[in-house]
Amino acid sequence: MKIKYEKIKGEKDTKARLGLIHTNYGTVKTPMFMPVGTQATVKTLSPEELKAINSGVILSNTYHLWLRPGEDIVDRAGGLHKFMNYDGPILTDSGGFQVFSLADKKNISEEGVIFKSHINGEKLFLTPEKSIEIQNKLDSDIAMSFDECIPYPADYDYAKKSTERTLRWAKRGKEAHKNENQSLFGIVQGGEYADLREWSAKETVKLDFDGYSIGGTSVGEDKKTMYKMIDDAIKYLPEDKPRYLMGVGDPIDILEGVERGVDMFDCVLPTRIARHGNAFTRNGKINLKNAKFKEDFSPIEEECDCYACKHYSKAYIRHLIVANETFGQRLLSIHNLRFLIKLTEDIRESIKEDNYLEFKNNFISKYNNK
Amino acid sequence: MKIKYEKIKGEKDTKARLGLIHTNYGTVKTPMFMPVGTQATVKTLSPEELKAINSGVILSNTYHLWLRPGEDIVDRAGGLHKFMNYDGPILTDSGGFQVFSLADKKNISEEGVIFKSHINGEKLFLTPEKSIEIQNKLDSDIAMSFDECIPYPADYDYAKKSTERTLRWAKRGKEAHKNENQSLFGIVQGGEYADLREWSAKETVKLDFDGYSIGGTSVGEDKKTMYKMIDDAIKYLPEDKPRYLMGVGDPIDILEGVERGVDMFDCVLPTRIARHGNAFTRNGKINLKNAKFKEDFSPIEEECDCYACKHYSKAYIRHLIVANETFGQRLLSIHNLRFLIKLTEDIRESIKEDNYLEFKNNFISKYNNK
Repeated sequence: MKIKYEKIKGEKDTKARLGLIHTNYGTVKTPMFMPVGTQATVKTLSPEELKAINSGVILSNTYHLWLRPGEDIVDRAGGLHKFMNYDGPILTDSGGFQVFSLADKKNISEEGVIFKSHINGEKLFLTPEKSIEIQNKLDSDIAMSFDECIPYPADYDYAKKSTERTLRWAKRGKEAHKNENQSLFGIVQGGEYADLREWSAKETVKLDFDGYSIGGTSVGEDKKTMYKMIDDAIKYLPEDKPRYLMGVGDPIDILEGVERGVDMFDCVLPTRIARHGNAFTRNGKINLKNAKFKEDFSPIEEECDCYACKHYSKAYIRHLIVANETFGQRLLSIHNLRFLIKLTEDIRESIKEDNYLEFKNNFISKYNNK
Repeated sequence: MKIKYEKIKGEKDTKARLGLIHTNYGTVKTPMFMPVGTQATVKTLSPEELKAINSGVILSNTYHLWLRPGEDIVDRAGGLHKFMNYDGPILTDSGGFQVFSLADKKNISEEGVIFKSHINGEKLFLTPEKSIEIQNKLDSDIAMSFDECIPYPADYDYAKKSTERTLRWAKRGKEAHKNENQSLFGIVQGGEYADLREWSAKETVKLDFDGYSIGGTSVGEDKKTMYKMIDDAIKYLPEDKPRYLMGVGDPIDILEGVERGVDMFDCVLPTRIARHGNAFTRNGKINLKNAKFKEDFSPIEEECDCYACKHYSKAYIRHLIVANETFGQRLLSIHNLRFLIKLTEDIRESIKEDNYLEFKNNFISKYNNK
């Protein structure tokens, strides 16, 4: 069965929307934040810990799983859910983002992309068909079309050609797609150009995907440009399909995205900053390596309901991080993911109550004034 | 309250004994294996995961906690139990083992040991009184006397002088000990010399400690010598106090120790080998990095009741280890610790049933013939 998006309501003053996505692995609420499990594991965490923080969909990376352990092994294990013991919905990316960061521009052709493996330097070739074939075998619930993530800034000519090629790749991927239990999303590109975003959105929608992603953001552009990229694309996307803003996990960006009608977000940020001792708080980010937390026996946040905040002090987590003990990363990953998931829970509540802007402004003013 | 050892029964054909240790944090069964949480965390694991594998006492390291975060911080946190959120009994070592491995022989004096911090090279001085003072502040349930772990081989003269000094240090430590809720163990040294082991055991027992440890094993000697060291010491230890063989975690050594009357074991082995992809099995150790496990979708051991074996395949854990994902170490640590704890559960059952030697021989012949 393909996923099914159900819109519950739109917020009174904004384009924010409350919805449900029905999947083969349960129904999840939107707007939502999806933890990233690059190599078939959300770094340091168990599936039970992800459930405990109320995570819905998790994301895994096609490029990484293609190289290690290989999609055939995941297939023979019974698919990604069984392989990694996660019985909630899983989304896989297309591999495009990683591949383009490893490829020379001259190795991008109409057919696909030649690049070097980050593991052993081996020369590899990824095409739209191959990306879909790998994702079919991984058996995720949602697969992504293979696209080029246009760098920022990019000249108009390059952006146009790339956007047109991404559309041709989307068609090829859709034709290659064989897994009846897997949904496929199209990706809107177009760089920073409103007319290209419009063209890309309209043409991609014509191909009738199960959902649409806004790609090519968070690639170095300023925030204003990023929000404009969302605006320029989202108005051409259908109401009855989910909209996904890829690679976005900053709390303020999530709030801005939701206001513009985005339903799904993902980012490695919460687990990556955890490894460096950083924690989200409602009063802004803090770094537990800071000496002022040495004897701070209070939790990261008194009001947080996560396992880390219920049982451990800043002083203890600081000790673990300074002593390079993995359990410290684990506690911070739990907290940071819970922070973003709780943010989306509060967002959903405010959409329900039709006071989204008030909620958003309160959150941001608190978050920016530590 | 100090701990209290209660002997339940001796086994028919051996010196193996079934017992209980009553502590302020619950009663634990002996013989037992104690997981090591060097830096106030059993690497990669939560306290709940330790409970789930039925761990009793866990061990933590005085040297490491002295340096980081410092015993005063642990003290102000409310002690080690509260600091690390572990409500089972905790044993701390004396720091001696680490300090001697970092010190020049010429820097060992009657007063104590000068050595360099492994973190920043700072010159530090540890004495029997200081070791006890630190442990008092850590507030573990069982503290260890500061001793010199004699290297192997050692000439008789050195071993004699060191053993005599260890006894003087034990006295000084006992006098310095102030924590009424903490028990203190004496340590039998004597190297490979039967008469020194006898002298050390008898003199240490005269000081009347809450338990006794057999030290200076697992330092490079062959197995026969190690077992003889145990025999030479244990016959002079009282029946009504627990006996602890420090640093031993090889399954066969545990079995040999129990046969000789040992009640307590600890070792970093199960978590250390986990980090390199090794797993204990009833048919011997296996290394999951081995290519033959690439498509092995069965658990490490079908008969194992641990979380890793209930939910994950060798192929998945292999993938995590090869991809350097911490969750792989976590799963292998759970399995390896559970393996040793289950071994002690089976040992206790066989003592109860008076068929220890049969159990031991069956286990060893299976373990050695993979």
